[in-house]
Amino acid sequence: MIETALVVVIVICLIALILAALLARNLLSQDEGTPKMREVSDAIKVGAEAFIKRQYSTIAIIAIILAVVIFVVYYFTGQQSLAVYTAVSYIIGATCSAVAGVVAMSIAVRTNIRTAAAAQHSDGKALDYSFRGGAISGLIITSMSLLGVSLTYIALGANPQTTPFVILGFGFGASFVALFAQLGGGIYTKAADVGADLVGKVEAGIPEDDVRNPATIADLVGDNVGDCAGRGADLFESTAAENIGAMILGVALFPVFGVNGVLFPIVMCSLGLLASMIGILTVKGKDGADPMDALNRGYYITAIISAVFLFFGVQWLLGAATGWLYFFYAGLVGIVLSVCFLRVTLYYTDHHYRPVKEIADASETGAATNIITGFSVGLETTAIPAILIAISLLLSYWFGSMTGIESGGLYGTAVATVGMLMVCAYVLAMDTFGPIADNAGGIVEMSGAPEEVRKRMDSLDAAGNTTKALTKGYAIGSASLAVFLLFNAYMADISKLTAKAFDVVNLASVPVFVGALLGAMLVFLFASFAIRAVSKTAQSVIEAVRIQFKNPGIMAGTQKPDYAAVIDITTQGALRNMVLPGVLVIGFPIFIGVTMRHEALAGFLMVATITGILLALILNNSGGAWDNAKKFIESGAHGGKKSEAHKAAVIGDTLGDPFKDTAGPSLHVLIKLLATLSLVLAPLFI
Amino acid sequence: MIETALVVVIVICLIALILAALLARNLLSQDEGTPKMREVSDAIKVGAEAFIKRQYSTIAIIAIILAVVIFVVYYFTGQQSLAVYTAVSYIIGATCSAVAGVVAMSIAVRTNIRTAAAAQHSDGKALDYSFRGGAISGLIITSMSLLGVSLTYIALGANPQTTPFVILGFGFGASFVALFAQLGGGIYTKAADVGADLVGKVEAGIPEDDVRNPATIADLVGDNVGDCAGRGADLFESTAAENIGAMILGVALFPVFGVNGVLFPIVMCSLGLLASMIGILTVKGKDGADPMDALNRGYYITAIISAVFLFFGVQWLLGAATGWLYFFYAGLVGIVLSVCFLRVTLYYTDHHYRPVKEIADASETGAATNIITGFSVGLETTAIPAILIAISLLLSYWFGSMTGIESGGLYGTAVATVGMLMVCAYVLAMDTFGPIADNAGGIVEMSGAPEEVRKRMDSLDAAGNTTKALTKGYAIGSASLAVFLLFNAYMADISKLTAKAFDVVNLASVPVFVGALLGAMLVFLFASFAIRAVSKTAQSVIEAVRIQFKNPGIMAGTQKPDYAAVIDITTQGALRNMVLPGVLVIGFPIFIGVTMRHEALAGFLMVATITGILLALILNNSGGAWDNAKKFIESGAHGGKKSEAHKAAVIGDTLGDPFKDTAGPSLHVLIKLLATLSLVLAPLFI
Repeated sequence: MIETALVVVIVICLIALILAALLARNLLSQDEGTPKMREVSDAIKVGAEAFIKRQYSTIAIIAIILAVVIFVVYYFTGQQSLAVYTAVSYIIGATCSAVAGVVAMSIAVRTNIRTAAAAQHSDGKALDYSFRGGAISGLIITSMSLLGVSLTYIALGANPQTTPFVILGFGFGASFVALFAQLGGGIYTKAADVGADLVGKVEAGIPEDDVRNPATIADLVGDNVGDCAGRGADLFESTAAENIGAMILGVALFPVFGVNGVLFPIVMCSLGLLASMIGILTVKGKDGADPMDALNRGYYITAIISAVFLFFGVQWLLGAATGWLYFFYAGLVGIVLSVCFLRVTLYYTDHHYRPVKEIADASETGAATNIITGFSVGLETTAIPAILIAISLLLSYWFGSMTGIESGGLYGTAVATVGMLMVCAYVLAMDTFGPIADNAGGIVEMSGAPEEVRKRMDSLDAAGNTTKALTKGYAIGSASLAVFLLFNAYMADISKLTAKAFDVVNLASVPVFVGALLGAMLVFLFASFAIRAVSKTAQSVIEAVRIQFKNPGIMAGTQKPDYAAVIDITTQGALRNMVLPGVLVIGFPIFIGVTMRHEALAGFLMVATITGILLALILNNSGGAWDNAKKFIESGAHGGKKSEAHKAAVIGDTLGDPFKDTAGPSLHVLIKLLATLSLVLAPLFI
Repeated sequence: MIETALVVVIVICLIALILAALLARNLLSQDEGTPKMREVSDAIKVGAEAFIKRQYSTIAIIAIILAVVIFVVYYFTGQQSLAVYTAVSYIIGATCSAVAGVVAMSIAVRTNIRTAAAAQHSDGKALDYSFRGGAISGLIITSMSLLGVSLTYIALGANPQTTPFVILGFGFGASFVALFAQLGGGIYTKAADVGADLVGKVEAGIPEDDVRNPATIADLVGDNVGDCAGRGADLFESTAAENIGAMILGVALFPVFGVNGVLFPIVMCSLGLLASMIGILTVKGKDGADPMDALNRGYYITAIISAVFLFFGVQWLLGAATGWLYFFYAGLVGIVLSVCFLRVTLYYTDHHYRPVKEIADASETGAATNIITGFSVGLETTAIPAILIAISLLLSYWFGSMTGIESGGLYGTAVATVGMLMVCAYVLAMDTFGPIADNAGGIVEMSGAPEEVRKRMDSLDAAGNTTKALTKGYAIGSASLAVFLLFNAYMADISKLTAKAFDVVNLASVPVFVGALLGAMLVFLFASFAIRAVSKTAQSVIEAVRIQFKNPGIMAGTQKPDYAAVIDITTQGALRNMVLPGVLVIGFPIFIGVTMRHEALAGFLMVATITGILLALILNNSGGAWDNAKKFIESGAHGGKKSEAHKAAVIGDTLGDPFKDTAGPSLHVLIKLLATLSLVLAPLFI
């Protein structure tokens, strides 16, 4: 018999998929614009699909090797019964994560052309289409994550006390694919972007998105494979990993809540999905209005409905505790934290506030001061988010403890995480909207559409930039909570394996301290590799474009540049350069765990996470602030385009590119990957 | 009766002081060069002395407030007997640290003119003088640190089981003054440097160190107050804090070694001082030879003699243990680590190796790629040092455990730290040599000396840049070991205060995890403030210079610019902007300790330290690499001066300035300050 709670989850997910299908049908029936637009869009589609195909082939090879490793580890550490289950759930997780990425990308490349076409007449419609494109991705990804966890749970026995430990493989599979998807896509998108800019704008002196630049299509492809596919995979695995982690913590509360405590996280996330659907449907573009107004309204509606659902959900599933109301408060902490993270990110990356203004001012004295100021802003942005995370953890732990249940404090932090992830589908919609609008803008530009159409797209593009920055803030905030929960799941897992309570990670012992030091180091080293991969790949792009520019026909505009050649080179470079950092972050923790055992690995994990969160904030926010300082100057401040200040701001923006779109988002995935990896390979480390 | 061991320490220190006096007498009797040189040098001296005077007045005010706080804390937490002792030893430590800074600066401003004069005839002599200037500082600072600790120990009762806990105040006083000295000096030197460059080279198009630029003298003053006084105070407190920490750990071994285990660290450091004296005396400049050859030879001689002394020292003081030889091995680990750190830093910052070459290559495609590459190099530089520190800690702990003594492992890490700090005086000599050579180069340039003299100074200046980078590597390496030791001292201190073993810092508990997160955050926030302070102060410098440049007489060279006005503005800016970050790093840990108690504070401390070490490596090494990439291009690579690549490299170098000379070195001090602060205010946190 399947629990009512599971039925609720499955039904809501099916509703979400139906809504997504309806939205997609409506969207696909819209006008596809001028032949010129279609030509550009087709080129993007072909390039994106080719990249994704080759990327996932590469990932598949590494994934299969790891599946064998997992099987062998379980088989030869006396866990034969788990070996097949874990390996299979790993493969399912990896496959679902890959599908999530492909879906996000496919929707995006079909939506951008329709958005561009709509922008010919109405900016309200353009917003509607691009946001709905994002919404389709958000709904499909979130419901696939929930369905994947639920169905794997049912398939593997649905025993509330043991199955959560078996479906760990699903979470690791999801993280694993997400890492490579985000890393490879991130390298691709920024190598193409940086390469196109340096060789086009700087060397040849032609504008951005100029048709003569052979790297422009690669640049537009990058938005789809990096931003859409990457963040899709990222949030897919956030939801999956967090749900599984919270279910494991729920096992400890089995005596109090029975199966309800175990299923609570996925039920709440599905209720959040329902709230997101309502929020999504309220978003309606209006000609001449600021797109952010509609998007923000939808977000607040989603958050408020989520809070209401949270109340009833807690009452229903955790009502067995007399102090259940405290769990509701803990969940509210998560919802409020998600709003706070968005506001803080806005403050640091929007030109209405001090930080971006400061960077724009500093551009007056050149690139050096622009970058010094931007970097110091980036470092500064760690403060408030860290304090917010600290308060949320302490508060939700305290609320949990007030319920009077043993381990209630820890479960309180899990409920807060669940609360934060309830709005996930809406956030994904808002996020994917950004690259779609960006792409549509590129199509409009390259198809030579009239000035007014470009202007319409500019305002949408600016909103897209803002939402991209905001959702990165959300992603890192939810990752921090999720990871704290995954630690505790790791400790519970080790305790179960060793049949001995593992509840102390003593940082004062030499091995744990050394583990912690190496964990922090790994994060910096990974960021170094990711950033270097962009500059190496960009170098290949630059060389390829230079060769084409030597052909006078291309510069004169009489001959079409060979876009495909550049796409091919970027693809090769991105795939080659993603392997080293990827293998590093999988191999290094295994090495630590095997040589220094589980407690040192726990220290490694925790400090890697702390450093990862803070470094991701630095990279994302400084990158976003540089980008918007440039846009602010382009809008006329400090002498506008062609001023010296603008030149300086362009350099800052280029530096920020690999920060905010390659290394930063990859770190989000990295910190979760480390946790799920440790969980799955735990038998190796005891 | 005073122990023989203490007599040895005091005698060696006195010998060192006599040697310093002899070297100084000889140096001061040398030629002071042309009247033009003297004019420049006098201006530097006046500016440096004025800054130091005002800086220490500001520091004194904050120091006195803290002395009262310390007294009150001890008095009202039932430790009345310790209140006066701790406050007094704090004041002595602070005073000695201040004197160390003043001495380093005074020697430097007197040596630079003599070095410049010597360069008129011989580069060998110029090396001799500048290195001896550094040696005088190194000898005085190290012996003052050792004398300070020993005499305070004697004055406060010389009870080997209790006095080490009382002289903690000395260590904190030293750290406290070092922080402000390094921070204020660091802000001063880079604000003047960046300001002078941006307004002179970039805006007005006049060369570096041009007499017409009113900010040049401030720039030269900066070398003295930032590099000489700052690093002097830094290594003074490293030695002091490490000795006190190791003495506290020695208390635990009192049953085995008696007083010898407690006095071991200071005895070994004094033997290291003796070895350094020998090393210093072997350094002899040779015309036309690479100065680095002589300096490196001296270093290796010092290290080898230290190793020999280490053997006999361990046998003498720790011979009571049958496994004493293992302690010798642990000490060797420290000496070897110091050599490794120097080699790694050399690899990352010297233009003969891949990293700097890569940055120079990347400059071809502009400032953005120069900076992206440099930053990724910076991130990469965390890897090998972290692994080295990890291996050293594990290995010395293991050696210590092999002695079979209880707590032997921990003492093994203390012995390794002692080993690393034995060469301290020599390293300081090498370090202070850098800014002296830099200053002498500036004097030669500004006094309009002939081309050949400038060339001679250039090669010395380049060596100075290298040694400056190397010694920063050494400082951070020794700080990491010292801090691990200080943690353990902190835990011993808390155990003593609460009369309950405190030996677990459980990172899995929410408050400790939160403390750890906030500790890491504090490091980033502090770096942000330090970097921002430079750009703010540089902005004032730029404005002040712009006003003077409006006077046509100055640009024509007919009228002397008002150097003093710029010095004054830089002084004000540096002092104003050092207060906020300084107060932050003192107030924040107190807040954490008071609200979340001693275990959370321990988590805070340890993770702040880990992050601080790694961030300091990133900032120091990327800054050094950018600097040397620029110099490499200036030497003719990639089109030489005036090429586009050079322009790009200058931007990278300017960004690196506040990284490597303000934020990075201040972080060295910060991490030790956090530890000594927690130690001294421990009664507040129980």
